[in-house]
Amino acid sequence: MSGFVSLVGAGPGDPELLTLKAARRLAEADLVLYDALVSGEVLRHAARAHCFFVGKRAGALGIRQEAIHRMLVEAARAGKRVVRLKCGDPFVLGRGGEEALALAEAGVPHEVVPGVSSALAAPALAGIPLTHRGLASGFAVVSGHDPAAWRPILDSIAPGSLSLVVLMGLRARAELAEALRARGWSPATPAALLFAASTPSARTWTGTLGELAEAPLPPGSDGAPATLVVGEVVALSASTGLAGDEAGAPAWRVA
Amino acid sequence: MSGFVSLVGAGPGDPELLTLKAARRLAEADLVLYDALVSGEVLRHAARAHCFFVGKRAGALGIRQEAIHRMLVEAARAGKRVVRLKCGDPFVLGRGGEEALALAEAGVPHEVVPGVSSALAAPALAGIPLTHRGLASGFAVVSGHDPAAWRPILDSIAPGSLSLVVLMGLRARAELAEALRARGWSPATPAALLFAASTPSARTWTGTLGELAEAPLPPGSDGAPATLVVGEVVALSASTGLAGDEAGAPAWRVA
Repeated sequence: MSGFVSLVGAGPGDPELLTLKAARRLAEADLVLYDALVSGEVLRHAARAHCFFVGKRAGALGIRQEAIHRMLVEAARAGKRVVRLKCGDPFVLGRGGEEALALAEAGVPHEVVPGVSSALAAPALAGIPLTHRGLASGFAVVSGHDPAAWRPILDSIAPGSLSLVVLMGLRARAELAEALRARGWSPATPAALLFAASTPSARTWTGTLGELAEAPLPPGSDGAPATLVVGEVVALSASTGLAGDEAGAPAWRVA
Repeated sequence: MSGFVSLVGAGPGDPELLTLKAARRLAEADLVLYDALVSGEVLRHAARAHCFFVGKRAGALGIRQEAIHRMLVEAARAGKRVVRLKCGDPFVLGRGGEEALALAEAGVPHEVVPGVSSALAAPALAGIPLTHRGLASGFAVVSGHDPAAWRPILDSIAPGSLSLVVLMGLRARAELAEALRARGWSPATPAALLFAASTPSARTWTGTLGELAEAPLPPGSDGAPATLVVGEVVALSASTGLAGDEAGAPAWRVA
């Protein structure tokens, strides 16, 4: 019997933001290869599977992408039901496309199970609608990991034309702010840093693009995933009555 | 006892792409106000609730947004647990922000439960990763409903700089294609129309931006939600081995 690989999104962090389909695939799995930031509560759905951590975090030695491809292919060829579990959505800045290509090339049957992306969920949970009548009819999502990748994108977007979401943008926040200001974004544009969204340690900083470089980091934010949002919609977080509601954690704000 | 309103995302269509939290909120609900395109299978989670359709579809007379706000506020004040159930994610082009503002203004306790957005799920299920090394490090999502809203956004994005997703863009596909070409996008840029993604009637058209205006619509696509994707990543759908996998429905393709 041939095995099968499911590329599954685990959602932004809250184990309840897993989809029913993801939970079922985990329950059926023989093997789960999971990334950093996937919670133990999510893995508990995989009651009969061997769960193997293949994530990489900044500074730590990670398993190479090619090794992950090989593990997926070999396990499926051995007849196993495999879940490749990724944070958020597997096809948003998660190299899921590369894994799908490798599986297709190897002739291994596979599927994708979309998940809730933190690019959308983190702003929502902080009370920031990415689109809102009269403020923004669209949004862009980019990775803040590699300046060579985000610079041409930021250069290509006209100032204030849409809401901007930067994943993995914490470390480069000063450069990102400077690039946007150089491109013509007003320093008064509202901005937010969202840490560990949808988890009990969720924290929010809101301010302006001009203040972003000097934004003090909340206690405990070290190593937490962070989402940066820039745009007029950020100002709505003060009036939507949602900031700080998640899991009873009060929003952390600069005085 | 005071009631409570949950603004809940129902996901892109597949009832299994509901989150565990959304299913729980539905099971606890006294009243569910739901939009068009929410499936009966999703509503079955709301075993003890009164379910009320408040959606609007193009051409049909819908319930006004203000009336929805009033129903949410009044039901919560009467002590009810209310779920406002929206397709996809409640804060992506869904007026969820307006509902949150109205609830906050009325002093009604509320929360948002993010869902899987079809802006991300539809491309993924058709084998199109919105981001992919060497092809696109980011993506933009806009509504194709109102040219006054999408024109300035498309004008502001440099050609080919990121993957472009247009929700509700089927009717305006010729204008959208023309606007992009006028802005400098190559007519050879790959493009896809994704109908009824994640449901058994899912169909996919792939071609180029130059062919988009004349794209023949698949049988049965009338009234189906459609997602337009433009960018080099669309070409990957031929090699990721995913197109047509969902729910056993073969992808519909132009010869």
